[in-house]
Amino acid sequence: MKIAGRHYRTIWPVSDEAVEVIDQTKLPHQFATLMLHTPEEAADAIRRMVVRGAPLIGATAAYGIALAMRADASDEALDRAHALLLETRPTAINLRWALARMRDRLRNHPRGGRARLAWTETAAICDEDVETCRRIGEHGLTIFRDAAAKKGGAQLNVLTHCNAGWLACVDWGTALAPIYMAQDAGLPIHVWVDETRPRNQGASLTAYELGAHGVPHTIIADNAGGHYMQAGEVDLAIVGTDRVTANGDVANKIGTYLKALAAKDNSIPFYVALPSSTIDWTLANGRDIPIEERSADELLKMTGRLPGGGIATVEIAAPGSPAANPGFDVTPARLVTAFVTERGICEATREGLRRLFPEG
Amino acid sequence: MKIAGRHYRTIWPVSDEAVEVIDQTKLPHQFATLMLHTPEEAADAIRRMVVRGAPLIGATAAYGIALAMRADASDEALDRAHALLLETRPTAINLRWALARMRDRLRNHPRGGRARLAWTETAAICDEDVETCRRIGEHGLTIFRDAAAKKGGAQLNVLTHCNAGWLACVDWGTALAPIYMAQDAGLPIHVWVDETRPRNQGASLTAYELGAHGVPHTIIADNAGGHYMQAGEVDLAIVGTDRVTANGDVANKIGTYLKALAAKDNSIPFYVALPSSTIDWTLANGRDIPIEERSADELLKMTGRLPGGGIATVEIAAPGSPAANPGFDVTPARLVTAFVTERGICEATREGLRRLFPEG
Repeated sequence: MKIAGRHYRTIWPVSDEAVEVIDQTKLPHQFATLMLHTPEEAADAIRRMVVRGAPLIGATAAYGIALAMRADASDEALDRAHALLLETRPTAINLRWALARMRDRLRNHPRGGRARLAWTETAAICDEDVETCRRIGEHGLTIFRDAAAKKGGAQLNVLTHCNAGWLACVDWGTALAPIYMAQDAGLPIHVWVDETRPRNQGASLTAYELGAHGVPHTIIADNAGGHYMQAGEVDLAIVGTDRVTANGDVANKIGTYLKALAAKDNSIPFYVALPSSTIDWTLANGRDIPIEERSADELLKMTGRLPGGGIATVEIAAPGSPAANPGFDVTPARLVTAFVTERGICEATREGLRRLFPEG
Repeated sequence: MKIAGRHYRTIWPVSDEAVEVIDQTKLPHQFATLMLHTPEEAADAIRRMVVRGAPLIGATAAYGIALAMRADASDEALDRAHALLLETRPTAINLRWALARMRDRLRNHPRGGRARLAWTETAAICDEDVETCRRIGEHGLTIFRDAAAKKGGAQLNVLTHCNAGWLACVDWGTALAPIYMAQDAGLPIHVWVDETRPRNQGASLTAYELGAHGVPHTIIADNAGGHYMQAGEVDLAIVGTDRVTANGDVANKIGTYLKALAAKDNSIPFYVALPSSTIDWTLANGRDIPIEERSADELLKMTGRLPGGGIATVEIAAPGSPAANPGFDVTPARLVTAFVTERGICEATREGLRRLFPEG
């Protein structure tokens, strides 16, 4: 995607020595990049959410392995980097998928060529992610075209939660890919952007992305989506996911479940967009997905821009009151209208997933 | 309720000249009070949410009428103050109720005695609100005792949204009254406090109240309640309301509907506590309730305490992105387990309400 006229991915190699990423903790107030030189720095970037979003976490972890191989291409170093990176975030399954792919590929390769292979394999993961997202966008676009046709030229209102845009991937995004394509195709689209507390990825990242691409959008409190659905002002909802279990249950940013309930209650289609690397075939259902508990500070403090332009963090809650901060919830498959994947659209069921991914 | 050992109401007369209120825009960082001398100042306090919460809005509006009568006790002045105060907030029906009560009482009274009568009538409204809330608390306590008994001594987890505590009323609160009584009765209670974006009345006011009273509580993002319900960590939910229609539909702070949906989906009782002055017998159902649209700034900016102790407001969203900010949503009666009123507990139906309030 373009920022100020220049095309960016969220992550890119710099020579064979380092990888550069957009520092998403600085957005929307500042566009800054960060260089990662070691697997430790890659792990830290994932943990601090300098990079976030399931596909981008996977890509960054793969680069973490590649960086490790440059310094030490032994089996031990490979296992060490794998373990270090795997423990950064518990919920997104793409992390495990990308690390497994890297380790499997490198283990069966002579040590001498591992550093080089790791670099090309990571580049392949990134290129594949871009292509996968593009295909998700194309398949999703068919849904958007049908929905727009039903509205007969009136504005098509789409609700999304958190950020499943290009900032969550290498490029394009998952849930936002069809939105960009719909906009480019001239559909009269408007997006309700859930703020997405406590880290506000909707208000800060999704709104930033949509604004940069010229997509009409409105930020709303996470509390407001149900009201707009009741009022007939949401035609469809689409979100990304951090892990889909074999039966179609969906782990995604905390609060997704509430929007899926409201969509069901108002007969509004609720779509989940995902690359197949987000499917966890090893878990029978969503109850077994580990839910990351994050720092209470994310809820009790808020960072933003002062009137003078400086960045400040303020305490916003009653002093001394404790807070709890689960990062994800699980939306049962019964609330999901369909999955939008790189191979097409399928029911949110075991059978639906198997039909598209029989090898899974 | 007590603050630092001193008993406070949220609003109290100062001689016969003015009324003093706790400035809730300053909480939780600063405890400050504000003097209101004219109906215009009362209207401004309601509009700016210096005072908020349906019962307290009603009490403040009544004092606004009393302040008007001190300066000019004519019918015209009465009508003018009534109109001025009525237009401050559209959703909470207690405002209309209190203003109608004041106007009806004063119109049929000689002008010479109106100022004095207005003052005593307002005091009566306040005293009645305290007694009403106390009774709501006692009736609600029976629910809490039953729920605690079922848990056999284990912690009773209650979820609430926004602030329906003593800060929303004259004293005690509606939804929080049974929580205070349960705590005082020694029940092992713990409260999940929804942050309640965009004005954060949960994190700032409810957490402040509960902390001051020593009630164990945890602030959570509005997004997180559904997750805790799925996890079996919520035993019951209880909220206040700004207007209940004749069929039992409930207008309350934006986001209430989403929690009611999640409670239903997880078979968790969802209670609404209200004084009967919150019932709008003139509306057949919630679709006709006017929903206040508030400033986008409430969503795009956040005020809090800097590390040095000063108060600052920061911009938190992508610059240039628009926002929409509906203040309330409507929870259909079908999602409400029961109403807790000053006369007891009833079904959230026309028949249930009529049984308790046949004169309504």
